[in-house]
Amino acid sequence: MKIIAEKINGTRKRVAQAIQERDAAFIQNLAREQASIPHTAWVDANAGTAPQREPEDLIWLVETIQSAIDKPIALDSANPKALEAAIKVVKTKPMINSISLEPGRRDIFPIVAEHDCPTVALASGEKGLPKTQEECLGNIARLLEKTRSMGIKDGNLYVDPLAMTIGSGIRNGLIFFDSVREIRRQFPEVHITCGLSNISFGLPARTYINRVFLALSMQAGMDCAICDPNNHDIQTTILATELLLAEDKHCLNYTRAFRAGVFNKPV
Amino acid sequence: MKIIAEKINGTRKRVAQAIQERDAAFIQNLAREQASIPHTAWVDANAGTAPQREPEDLIWLVETIQSAIDKPIALDSANPKALEAAIKVVKTKPMINSISLEPGRRDIFPIVAEHDCPTVALASGEKGLPKTQEECLGNIARLLEKTRSMGIKDGNLYVDPLAMTIGSGIRNGLIFFDSVREIRRQFPEVHITCGLSNISFGLPARTYINRVFLALSMQAGMDCAICDPNNHDIQTTILATELLLAEDKHCLNYTRAFRAGVFNKPV
Repeated sequence: MKIIAEKINGTRKRVAQAIQERDAAFIQNLAREQASIPHTAWVDANAGTAPQREPEDLIWLVETIQSAIDKPIALDSANPKALEAAIKVVKTKPMINSISLEPGRRDIFPIVAEHDCPTVALASGEKGLPKTQEECLGNIARLLEKTRSMGIKDGNLYVDPLAMTIGSGIRNGLIFFDSVREIRRQFPEVHITCGLSNISFGLPARTYINRVFLALSMQAGMDCAICDPNNHDIQTTILATELLLAEDKHCLNYTRAFRAGVFNKPV
Repeated sequence: MKIIAEKINGTRKRVAQAIQERDAAFIQNLAREQASIPHTAWVDANAGTAPQREPEDLIWLVETIQSAIDKPIALDSANPKALEAAIKVVKTKPMINSISLEPGRRDIFPIVAEHDCPTVALASGEKGLPKTQEECLGNIARLLEKTRSMGIKDGNLYVDPLAMTIGSGIRNGLIFFDSVREIRRQFPEVHITCGLSNISFGLPARTYINRVFLALSMQAGMDCAICDPNNHDIQTTILATELLLAEDKHCLNYTRAFRAGVFNKPV
């Protein structure tokens, strides 16, 4: 299981402030904290959505993060100019977050193709979020036609079927698990990811829903999540789920984490 | 999801002492505590395994428990004499725990048939625990031949495929989930249960394994568990898993439990 660590996100007030004030220490602490978790594969960098400032802000963010950690960065932007600028300064091959069929994302595909980057591939269509499972799977099939025609490898795609909150439809969990199984069946080479906390939006006691959703999604075939890697529920759920799905040889990761105190109750 | 509440078990030292000393208050507290959880369907009564005393002890246990709670009792014994004696005093139709192909359990089948009781049906064979998944599923098929020939309804069976600890084989989780799916496919009318904590025997931080095992087993089709209903991890996992599997209409159980404080951190 791989994590795209989500906390350096300019749409969060405190992070936006740190970016504006060029508060490198704040950003680097977040980067180190997230990168310290073994399952963190990429640290997301989202510089906010101000079109004028974004390229410059993202360059500063990337340089600040990579001076603190060695793990690669997920360049999180819908702005091709910001992505082009940031990709020139990254030291390690980044992930691109994200491509989709939405017209505004059209110019991101060539960047992914040229740099042979892993990329989040959202199931949105030309007109936004899919309204049904059929539309979701149809969008993904058309997205893959496009990526394949551009020479983007299936193995570089982290397909996000876009979980909808249970609050807006009681079958949204089942639909998500089923979509994951179907994507895994149709496109065995792609990875599958999602923003973990969307499933519980608007509901109380969200962490209890998110952690079970994570385990059930892993059983269905999801192999990546966009989430907070430092969350105790997420860490312990990934370790236990990998153990139960036979993905932890000789229980080594689990027992090692136990000795390192990962299962101690959070304060 | 139904729970067979496991705490009144004479193989536990403190319970054995209470039975010997006829400490009704201790037993009744355990009964009330377990019965107070909505998912508890039966409160297990195991009077220990002393063959001379067991019938008398089980009668006392049943009368003590049913004077404190209204939920039915699971009569937990391998001794047909104790079961026959106890079944005469129960007020509400009990569950029988358990039948299997083991020769010692032969005389329990007629009791189940005569009283039309729900019963735990273990996957053990004539020579004890199954060593492979094939043997497990073979035992269950032969067990159902026998119950059907005796007029015991499939819907009265709570089949236990006997989870083995991950500590003795890294694939034991996968094997269990697969067995559950296969039983569900072959015998759509039966219920499926297991002793929840067996999966983590010998491993550290067991509650983290047990709670994910519970969620993944429910996704595979298990609809009953033998466990401690008062355990916070178990309660919250069942509520969240039922929510995610669309078994909680309008999220009512989940939001009700939230208002009742179920998700508050345990002390």
